[in-house]
Amino acid sequence: MAMMKKRFEGKVAIVTASTQGIGFSIAERLGLEGASIVISSRKQKNVDEAVEKLKSKGIEVFGVVCHVSNAQHRKNLIDQTIQKYGKINVVVSNAAANPSVDPILETKESILDKLWEINVKASILILQDAAPHLEKGSSVVFISSITAYQPSASMGMYGVTKTALLGLTKALAIEMSPDTRVNTVAPGFVPTHFADFLTKDENVRKEIEQRTLLNRLGTTEDMASATAYLASDDASYITGETLVVAGGMPSRL
Amino acid sequence: MAMMKKRFEGKVAIVTASTQGIGFSIAERLGLEGASIVISSRKQKNVDEAVEKLKSKGIEVFGVVCHVSNAQHRKNLIDQTIQKYGKINVVVSNAAANPSVDPILETKESILDKLWEINVKASILILQDAAPHLEKGSSVVFISSITAYQPSASMGMYGVTKTALLGLTKALAIEMSPDTRVNTVAPGFVPTHFADFLTKDENVRKEIEQRTLLNRLGTTEDMASATAYLASDDASYITGETLVVAGGMPSRL
Amino acid sequence: MAMMKKRFEGKVAIVTASTQGIGFSIAERLGLEGASIVISSRKQKNVDEAVEKLKSKGIEVFGVVCHVSNAQHRKNLIDQTIQKYGKINVVVSNAAANPSVDPILETKESILDKLWEINVKASILILQDAAPHLEKGSSVVFISSITAYQPSASMGMYGVTKTALLGLTKALAIEMSPDTRVNTVAPGFVPTHFADFLTKDENVRKEIEQRTLLNRLGTTEDMASATAYLASDDASYITGETLVVAGGMPSRL
Amino acid sequence: MAMMKKRFEGKVAIVTASTQGIGFSIAERLGLEGASIVISSRKQKNVDEAVEKLKSKGIEVFGVVCHVSNAQHRKNLIDQTIQKYGKINVVVSNAAANPSVDPILETKESILDKLWEINVKASILILQDAAPHLEKGSSVVFISSITAYQPSASMGMYGVTKTALLGLTKALAIEMSPDTRVNTVAPGFVPTHFADFLTKDENVRKEIEQRTLLNRLGTTEDMASATAYLASDDASYITGETLVVAGGMPSRL
Repeated sequence: MAMMKKRFEGKVAIVTASTQGIGFSIAERLGLEGASIVISSRKQKNVDEAVEKLKSKGIEVFGVVCHVSNAQHRKNLIDQTIQKYGKINVVVSNAAANPSVDPILETKESILDKLWEINVKASILILQDAAPHLEKGSSVVFISSITAYQPSASMGMYGVTKTALLGLTKALAIEMSPDTRVNTVAPGFVPTHFADFLTKDENVRKEIEQRTLLNRLGTTEDMASATAYLASDDASYITGETLVVAGGMPSRL
Repeated sequence: MAMMKKRFEGKVAIVTASTQGIGFSIAERLGLEGASIVISSRKQKNVDEAVEKLKSKGIEVFGVVCHVSNAQHRKNLIDQTIQKYGKINVVVSNAAANPSVDPILETKESILDKLWEINVKASILILQDAAPHLEKGSSVVFISSITAYQPSASMGMYGVTKTALLGLTKALAIEMSPDTRVNTVAPGFVPTHFADFLTKDENVRKEIEQRTLLNRLGTTEDMASATAYLASDDASYITGETLVVAGGMPSRL
Repeated sequence: MAMMKKRFEGKVAIVTASTQGIGFSIAERLGLEGASIVISSRKQKNVDEAVEKLKSKGIEVFGVVCHVSNAQHRKNLIDQTIQKYGKINVVVSNAAANPSVDPILETKESILDKLWEINVKASILILQDAAPHLEKGSSVVFISSITAYQPSASMGMYGVTKTALLGLTKALAIEMSPDTRVNTVAPGFVPTHFADFLTKDENVRKEIEQRTLLNRLGTTEDMASATAYLASDDASYITGETLVVAGGMPSRL
Repeated sequence: MAMMKKRFEGKVAIVTASTQGIGFSIAERLGLEGASIVISSRKQKNVDEAVEKLKSKGIEVFGVVCHVSNAQHRKNLIDQTIQKYGKINVVVSNAAANPSVDPILETKESILDKLWEINVKASILILQDAAPHLEKGSSVVFISSITAYQPSASMGMYGVTKTALLGLTKALAIEMSPDTRVNTVAPGFVPTHFADFLTKDENVRKEIEQRTLLNRLGTTEDMASATAYLASDDASYITGETLVVAGGMPSRL
């Protein structure tokens, strides 16, 4: 069978919110390309199950319960990673709060805060903990959203926090260069548990599909391959950039 | 003397953080073009002085002390405006926290929160209070920054919150249309008290000037004329857009 | 009646393709704000009629027949302007070829060339002629299109040439700074003769209206006020920028 | 040695201007990942040498002399590809005219035309020839430039044509979907023969390096890996997008 070199042999990758959905596929893809993986999410049961699934595919993997908005959890995630593997090469910050479906002008302050805290601030704080351990040549990948560029009426504030990530990508690319690259994937609509509120309705799903040029929703694997590309040395001249993976939905030039 | 029609006759405009700097110039410009102005900032003394200055130019003006991150203050600002003028036509959300000069990865959580709260959340919450009173044909203008597009190493997190405003502009434009337009001005570097930390140093100032194409820093009046344009009926077909006023510094297509 | 200062007193403005539609409204607006206007288009009859209409509104105006893709015509336009008024302060390059409705991959080479020649190259060549006569503080405005950012299936190649103008704006802003500013207006859909092929069909028009946030097509006056703003000293700190005037249609951050 | 699946087994890829520089590296990368390659450029000698180099690496390759602005050459390139391999899966349109270093306002009409013809029009015309032969699931990749987003004073018009490609990408993505995806790579500065005029001067090269965040110029391999990613099924949910590969030089959000 025709083969090419694995891109993450000898590398250690942390992926947050990775026991299902996009995060799980990213962990799986990086693992299949040779990385040692640290997966995490809020529930021990989910972590355990995901570890088993990845191990069954021959992936070197380690699971830590981590609610990213909890400072002690974040510290523990980094500490255990270092204890286990001794270094960090890739951080994929995938955790996000469930989108609020309320109009922004009807969203409670506590929900505004939660979206900010999980979607933006936690990404920063986890990097504050991880930064001292990042090897030269490391890579950070944020997961934004097509709604960062073209807001959806039904998930306005979620999109605003995802727009913030576009700026964070550029600012941290400056700050962490040249030793660490920082990039972002902006997924279109992917029918995960997370997006159930939209995609479980057949009509809404069809309507979204028709707004793409490729006549389908995204898959978690689509996002995993984009993340793997940006995190790999194939993208070693890319930093501060966002890659839209949205089936041709209107984005930006 | 050759003249054209004033654009804000009979209109009521709230401008936050308007007792000096860009906010003051915006209040002055809207007032000179006929608007009744509600100015505000955190200190009574500053409010009083600004009211006097604007009155001396023949502007109808009313001052309210308002710290935009204080819910009671925000409510009071709107209540007093309605009590005084009975309606709102223009809201210019200009308040911003002082930029943090620390790298993002060395910025304390409390500072991250403060930038979010004043630069983004307060803009939302004040509109939640104002929205029920906005007349048909109203206009909202946010003040972002060139650093929303091209981050500056010395004010990274400030820029991230300003990037968030670009998304907020689009999301609220959807939400508030067609009765209210929502747009944003993204100023370049303006040597106000606010930017003193950069522009008071002659060398830094010169360096910034050279990054512009027009070989000068911006003026508060440059931002005021842009805001007045976007808030006026001259821009009645513009919503969800950001206008960069930065002397030709690198921005976006 | 409440008034403000006219912005183009003592200024001379050339507007191409200005005997009807958006160009005519731009000429009218600049003229009403005090500019001496040079209008032009391909047919003497149209030029004569437009001159009469503008004169009847008290505008100082002068008409020259000019097909912008004709080198002699372009030279003549500039020569006559200088002979008549002695200087140039504003150039609005509005001429555009009729959109091709064919798919790009079915468009003949001659049509591709024509769109390039009129929409992009003529804008450059007319500036090559005009540049030596531009006063310090002059302003150039190109007319692009929302389709520069978000292509329409039915006018693909037209949009591509309009995308080129976004880059031309930036490149010439660099080249002509600091003495001349260069900016662009990107109109949405305006029901002029030019867009008849789209907007004369009631259903297509309604469909386009629904893609805006303001539930209407644009007017030629909307584009004229945007152009006047960018060309005026109100925008004296803006160069290299494009202003989208498209009723909130999807554009860019 | 750890390996992963080759991504272009059984695929046929045409790469224009591929006997040296970026084009050659793209051909090599696609070939090493299993594609049968059709290389081309203007000179038989260069074609022959490149074919030998690629063959020596075990790549299935076929060379055709093709000046992309020659209609007969373009037709011949496609005809010979079909005759040899029977289908087309990937088209990488890499040909570009040498940048003009003159200011746009001092560039002769013939040079403006040449840049348009080679950088934009030839890309369209070659696809008009290739389209009937593209298999379902094909991929087109254009090569634009960082100067499409942020013009360089020394290569203004070159950048304008590269900006046009950003729009062409979106327009053709609409037109060719869902069967063919269309994307673009926007390289930063790569010290090829093509960019010699800039990068052979040590001082200019250092100055460019300092404008990147990664403190180096790009390599042809950086562009090849980006092109391979976009052309592969790893990017099967990406169409109409441009990926900036420029070492963190200012681009866009």
